[in-house]
Amino acid sequence: MNRQDLIIEIKNKKSFLCVGLDTDLRKIPPHLTEEEDPIFKFNKEIIDATAPYCVAYKPNLAFYEAFGVKGVIAFEKTVRYLKENYPHHFIIADAKRGDIGNTSAMYARTFFEEYDIDAITVAPYMGEDSVTPFLTYNDKWIILLALTSNKGSNDFQLTENKNGQRLFEEVLYKSQKWGNPKNMMYVVGATQGKMFKDVRKIVPDSFLLVPGVGAQGGSLEDVCKYGMIKDCGLLVNSSRGIIYASNKNDFATVAAQKACEIQKEMEKELYAHDIL
Amino acid sequence: MNRQDLIIEIKNKKSFLCVGLDTDLRKIPPHLTEEEDPIFKFNKEIIDATAPYCVAYKPNLAFYEAFGVKGVIAFEKTVRYLKENYPHHFIIADAKRGDIGNTSAMYARTFFEEYDIDAITVAPYMGEDSVTPFLTYNDKWIILLALTSNKGSNDFQLTENKNGQRLFEEVLYKSQKWGNPKNMMYVVGATQGKMFKDVRKIVPDSFLLVPGVGAQGGSLEDVCKYGMIKDCGLLVNSSRGIIYASNKNDFATVAAQKACEIQKEMEKELYAHDIL
Repeated sequence: MNRQDLIIEIKNKKSFLCVGLDTDLRKIPPHLTEEEDPIFKFNKEIIDATAPYCVAYKPNLAFYEAFGVKGVIAFEKTVRYLKENYPHHFIIADAKRGDIGNTSAMYARTFFEEYDIDAITVAPYMGEDSVTPFLTYNDKWIILLALTSNKGSNDFQLTENKNGQRLFEEVLYKSQKWGNPKNMMYVVGATQGKMFKDVRKIVPDSFLLVPGVGAQGGSLEDVCKYGMIKDCGLLVNSSRGIIYASNKNDFATVAAQKACEIQKEMEKELYAHDIL
Repeated sequence: MNRQDLIIEIKNKKSFLCVGLDTDLRKIPPHLTEEEDPIFKFNKEIIDATAPYCVAYKPNLAFYEAFGVKGVIAFEKTVRYLKENYPHHFIIADAKRGDIGNTSAMYARTFFEEYDIDAITVAPYMGEDSVTPFLTYNDKWIILLALTSNKGSNDFQLTENKNGQRLFEEVLYKSQKWGNPKNMMYVVGATQGKMFKDVRKIVPDSFLLVPGVGAQGGSLEDVCKYGMIKDCGLLVNSSRGIIYASNKNDFATVAAQKACEIQKEMEKELYAHDIL
């Protein structure tokens, strides 16, 4: 999916919500565990219930790999289900990959050719040749970790270099020589509040994938105040706050309610920022 | 496997070679592609041929994930085959993972509990809580990326902070508060030559996993000169230089010859450094 189509979806749905499919077999409603493929069954119901309120889905690979072959099958079925039934939703493989060039190329082939997914999250530690193999595909995206939502983001990402530039800022600067706002987004955690201002100074036009609203405590209002741009430029993710809002038979209905609540808030923000 | 047992293996085999199982379906001998599970068949023959000359195997997950469910099955079979037939070989999942705490915990469970693998490579960008979930298992190891072998290692890893400390040095320093030489190793590329001196100033006792000898151009002599310690402290990896030395029917025999040549060089180094 290209940038223009993503923006059209955001305007149509009045939403920039991404639902994180961090599906943990030990957390899903007990009645589903008797299903043949409980992970896929759970995802399917969550997707059908939340699709009107979100523009993107983000399965985190860790949760699928944890269940070996069964998990991978559930992941593949989920992607196929999305592509067949919701072709206008943007799909992000949250994989946080990154390796030497020929290995990154292998990951790119897997996610962009085999699965035909729209975007993959990548860690920048190994530099340019670990990132660029993902940038050779039309209408596919790399989402580079910049300033993450977790406590550990303080350990290295905020270290200042000799020129007073923090590591996440260096990542933002350098990576713009490798990609552009049509094929590269950045992860910036909602918990980072005013830091969005500093991010926007360096990448004024790039889309940001924002985790950390909800369970991790980030504020949607702050994210929009400091991070929103004229064509939105934000995909805000919520995982646990939506998919585990209930673990009873009504889990899909409750997930839809939660997603709808967030969509309503997003709609307000989009109007407030003259995007709608 | 604990540190003491790993050192015993190194002394017994007079080798600190790790064979990288970066098995690419498009590069293996054509006659194997007719097998039911060509990736596993290739790995099995490579393992049987090279086991006398190495102490560790390192499958890179990218190569298995690239083939979806079939790849994951081949990976699982390879690990099981190693554990059943070569229980004294150290197994490293080269995955370069790293995510927020609860997700890293998920990866740790997958690799350490489900697969019972000895070690996993992890990227440090997300800091402490992305690393520590891997450190709660007895006799299991995290191998943290410090100074990688690729060109992109120049992009961020060598950036100096305000105190003149380069990012890889900061990673070495900080991570020692999280783990210790009994549960944490570091990736340092063989292509980094004299930089091993700087690494050893900070982590004098830690094992280093060293990729980049062979296809990537690193020198075993330099690595040993600057990186070897009194109980060796090195696992030197070779992937393509061994497993793709021939792509004819004799691939396993030629792989064994290549592994044996490296083992002989390693034996000399171990004697020269009074380890044998």
